[in-house]
Amino acid sequence: MMNTPLILTQMIERVEKFFPNKQVISRTSTGVQRFTYKEFGERTRRLASVLTKFGITRGDKVGTIAWNHHRHLEAYFAIPCIGAVLHTINIRLSPQQIAYIINHAGDKILLIDEDLLPIVENCKDELKNVEAFIIMTDRPELPETSLSPVYHYEDLLSEGDALFTFVKDIDENDPAGMCYTSATTGLPKGVLYSHRGIVLHSFALGLADGGSVSEKDTAMPIVPMFHVNAWGLPFACVWFGSNLVLPGPNFTPKILLELMVSEKVTISAGVPTIWIGVLKELENENYDLSHVRYLLCGGSAAPKGIIKMFEKKYNIPFMHAYGMTETTPLALISRLKSEHDELPEEDIYELKAKQGILVPGLEMKVIGQNGEVKWDGIEMGELCLRGPWIASSYYNDDRSEETFKDGWLHTGDVVTVDKSGFVKIVDRTKDLIKSGGEWISSVDIENALMAHEAVFEAAVVAIPHEKWQERPVACVVLKDQYKDKIIEDELYEFLKPQFAKWWLPDKILFMNEIPKTSVGKFLKRALRDQVKELLNV
Amino acid sequence: MMNTPLILTQMIERVEKFFPNKQVISRTSTGVQRFTYKEFGERTRRLASVLTKFGITRGDKVGTIAWNHHRHLEAYFAIPCIGAVLHTINIRLSPQQIAYIINHAGDKILLIDEDLLPIVENCKDELKNVEAFIIMTDRPELPETSLSPVYHYEDLLSEGDALFTFVKDIDENDPAGMCYTSATTGLPKGVLYSHRGIVLHSFALGLADGGSVSEKDTAMPIVPMFHVNAWGLPFACVWFGSNLVLPGPNFTPKILLELMVSEKVTISAGVPTIWIGVLKELENENYDLSHVRYLLCGGSAAPKGIIKMFEKKYNIPFMHAYGMTETTPLALISRLKSEHDELPEEDIYELKAKQGILVPGLEMKVIGQNGEVKWDGIEMGELCLRGPWIASSYYNDDRSEETFKDGWLHTGDVVTVDKSGFVKIVDRTKDLIKSGGEWISSVDIENALMAHEAVFEAAVVAIPHEKWQERPVACVVLKDQYKDKIIEDELYEFLKPQFAKWWLPDKILFMNEIPKTSVGKFLKRALRDQVKELLNV
Repeated sequence: MMNTPLILTQMIERVEKFFPNKQVISRTSTGVQRFTYKEFGERTRRLASVLTKFGITRGDKVGTIAWNHHRHLEAYFAIPCIGAVLHTINIRLSPQQIAYIINHAGDKILLIDEDLLPIVENCKDELKNVEAFIIMTDRPELPETSLSPVYHYEDLLSEGDALFTFVKDIDENDPAGMCYTSATTGLPKGVLYSHRGIVLHSFALGLADGGSVSEKDTAMPIVPMFHVNAWGLPFACVWFGSNLVLPGPNFTPKILLELMVSEKVTISAGVPTIWIGVLKELENENYDLSHVRYLLCGGSAAPKGIIKMFEKKYNIPFMHAYGMTETTPLALISRLKSEHDELPEEDIYELKAKQGILVPGLEMKVIGQNGEVKWDGIEMGELCLRGPWIASSYYNDDRSEETFKDGWLHTGDVVTVDKSGFVKIVDRTKDLIKSGGEWISSVDIENALMAHEAVFEAAVVAIPHEKWQERPVACVVLKDQYKDKIIEDELYEFLKPQFAKWWLPDKILFMNEIPKTSVGKFLKRALRDQVKELLNV
Repeated sequence: MMNTPLILTQMIERVEKFFPNKQVISRTSTGVQRFTYKEFGERTRRLASVLTKFGITRGDKVGTIAWNHHRHLEAYFAIPCIGAVLHTINIRLSPQQIAYIINHAGDKILLIDEDLLPIVENCKDELKNVEAFIIMTDRPELPETSLSPVYHYEDLLSEGDALFTFVKDIDENDPAGMCYTSATTGLPKGVLYSHRGIVLHSFALGLADGGSVSEKDTAMPIVPMFHVNAWGLPFACVWFGSNLVLPGPNFTPKILLELMVSEKVTISAGVPTIWIGVLKELENENYDLSHVRYLLCGGSAAPKGIIKMFEKKYNIPFMHAYGMTETTPLALISRLKSEHDELPEEDIYELKAKQGILVPGLEMKVIGQNGEVKWDGIEMGELCLRGPWIASSYYNDDRSEETFKDGWLHTGDVVTVDKSGFVKIVDRTKDLIKSGGEWISSVDIENALMAHEAVFEAAVVAIPHEKWQERPVACVVLKDQYKDKIIEDELYEFLKPQFAKWWLPDKILFMNEIPKTSVGKFLKRALRDQVKELLNV
């Protein structure tokens, strides 16, 4: 067979040739703009030529600080297609973290959205390698900024070469992109995405049994393009010629729904928070979403109730997916199997609330206390993944060894696998409670508690125990109207029928709030310290 | 990213783990047998262990002479998954050709269907490397044969190891399979398929915009497993967990249709001759084919009338695909684009009769007399293909240079490309008529003639011409009831409105038959000689 490489240039060349009239619909601060893929191709080639003129070459890192819009999409292809590395910077990190990752990656140029300039201005004095700041704006003039030297994206493009030839002899194992993931301790860790990894991941997104992304689709990634390549949708959609709707900055559920209606979106992807917001807006107003083939949900687990609401009340298929920065990200997808066809409705939703089945192209194993776990939906173990779109290390980072062992990515997620191969996350390894040699899932107890009408939120952590090593303690925030009206005993009575006796928390503490990370996840480390202090253990 | 290779062991491991209860339905000479993929996995591991005991190791070639059935499928995986090379032998070649390819490949073991033994017996004295003949039969005893040493497939399997571990460190560029293609002149030419090529080709078969093969499918490849891997369906179906129906030897359209009904087949694949037979049977009797998602047709072009009959009369989606032994084979597929949604019916069938659009992962160019042709549906050029599942040479063959030039496969097919990127084969380069520096498609004139009610078949060839270099001459066989009742002039009047004047044949010859190859294609070389003699040019 020919040794033609799996590289991104093929994707853009395919869309230019075969789907020149399909569209990128881009919502920016000034309104909705439309570009055909022919125009997209020309603008991307212009940008590639401009970057080349700036001296960007093989292996150089170019950072983006941007929302989901057409210019960001141009950067997604222009940078890798000259052999350089697209570094998508998570705008939600702290200024120190942002300065750290820009320096750690060694970004030579930053492409920055006008309204995100303060993020860079706040840390500009710490930046070591950045030689130019290119501002992405719809306005003809450059905004006021303390950054220097600054350039106007559109001015540069107008001088670029619309017929620029992409670099052809890229090695498929060369990095095309990179993204940093926030660590539980310490500074963010970088993951490099190879051309090969992205192409194969795009194949998975196009599989009938994967994302089934097709030319007939109009896809709207709501998940940010600064977050694991917007789950790979920009690459797959360009390759397959799907229309792409990029919802830009400061969107609301209403704006998203209006875009979905006006553009006849067939696929959209986002985290549970987004879908909960969309669901609320659907309660307020009527939207015709009959064209939606599915909504993809990842990042964290969507409650079963949300899935049911979308599917039963609004007739919109809803699909869980699982992945992480280290997995490009698609690894699992909750696409039901033919053996599930005849299941009763409750069992269907039980399955749909799981993270799903492994996508073709990857391998998984789940390592419990005694080696690989039984596929019984009960035994718990850490999910380990392997495959050509799974990272093999963090970029220049000593912490790689903790996560990448024996050729496998150890995800840190504790899961069960049922007999049909469906994976369900039950905890993070670090949050799992090890009591008397057995594992207790903090997440299961939390979910049970949060199903009580009085409970606003609940987090369960381990405290040290002389005999059992660790024991669970639950921290509960009550809804305002129930404050001081519920006692520990009532919650115990509620939990008892649902769990083995030894799973029940040793103590239920009532709190005013539970400490959280910047993205709204429980900060269990801090909570554990707080609980230990309170209980004096 | 991890450097995990793209190899076939992953496919079988996936189906064993995730789809153990899905089925292989195998029709053999004794009836229809069923195996779960769990059983398939165990039997395949047994076979792999047996082959290892025979001393088969990395790079060794193992030949198969067999119909489509479960044992052949086991060989499809057992051989490559120990690093050896599956050589599927075309049973329709002559004894000399078969002896040549077995020796040229260097097959060490042959797996042979009981009823195909004569093929090998006829050439056994010429075989140089074959050390063992393994007979695939449902009967407990070995058949009478002059071959030696012979072994009974099932006896060997019963001694094999159902827990055998496949070879894990296969390089993805190592050959997994091979197939010989008959050449227009000389002996057959061999093509090696790499693990990487087959895995990527399977991805293409699974793409929503490719073959869309899914776990929910039940696929029946009618195209023989000795013919370009049955178009790759055995690999894709095992990987994705689709049920596989293998229709075995001596099937009739009735048998095929009964299997399609009883197994609720969703996808089937075959050459036009098969589908014409199926269509005739559909006229005779009622079959419930409502579960069929599509019929795939390749090998040669299906007439538009056939496509229309299936779709309009029987409501069965019918899809053209294009490929060749050198392309694993899927290269083009006539899946309509969204821009075609609003086309009038006639235009839709015009498109569906074309070979279709390039599948993701490959590159194409069409080289005419002045470089790349315009995509206007008119300008003709040779289709050239490039990509990771396109062969780069023939196996140990001096003739490679004619076909593989400048990193491209020159298919020898002359095509047009329309503005939507749909490719239509208009001729073979060797059959194209070059008149006064312009090209004339022999196929177009043939099709036009064959649309005349009096014409049974028609072939058009070039004869040398002093001024114009070449000129077309048509050879026509009339239907019995029209013999001696139609004259040249009437056919000219029929052709005139359809073609430019200079396309019209210089002469229309009436013949009793047109010489054909063993697979029923016009033997244009012989016909050209015949015409030259007749016309004395």
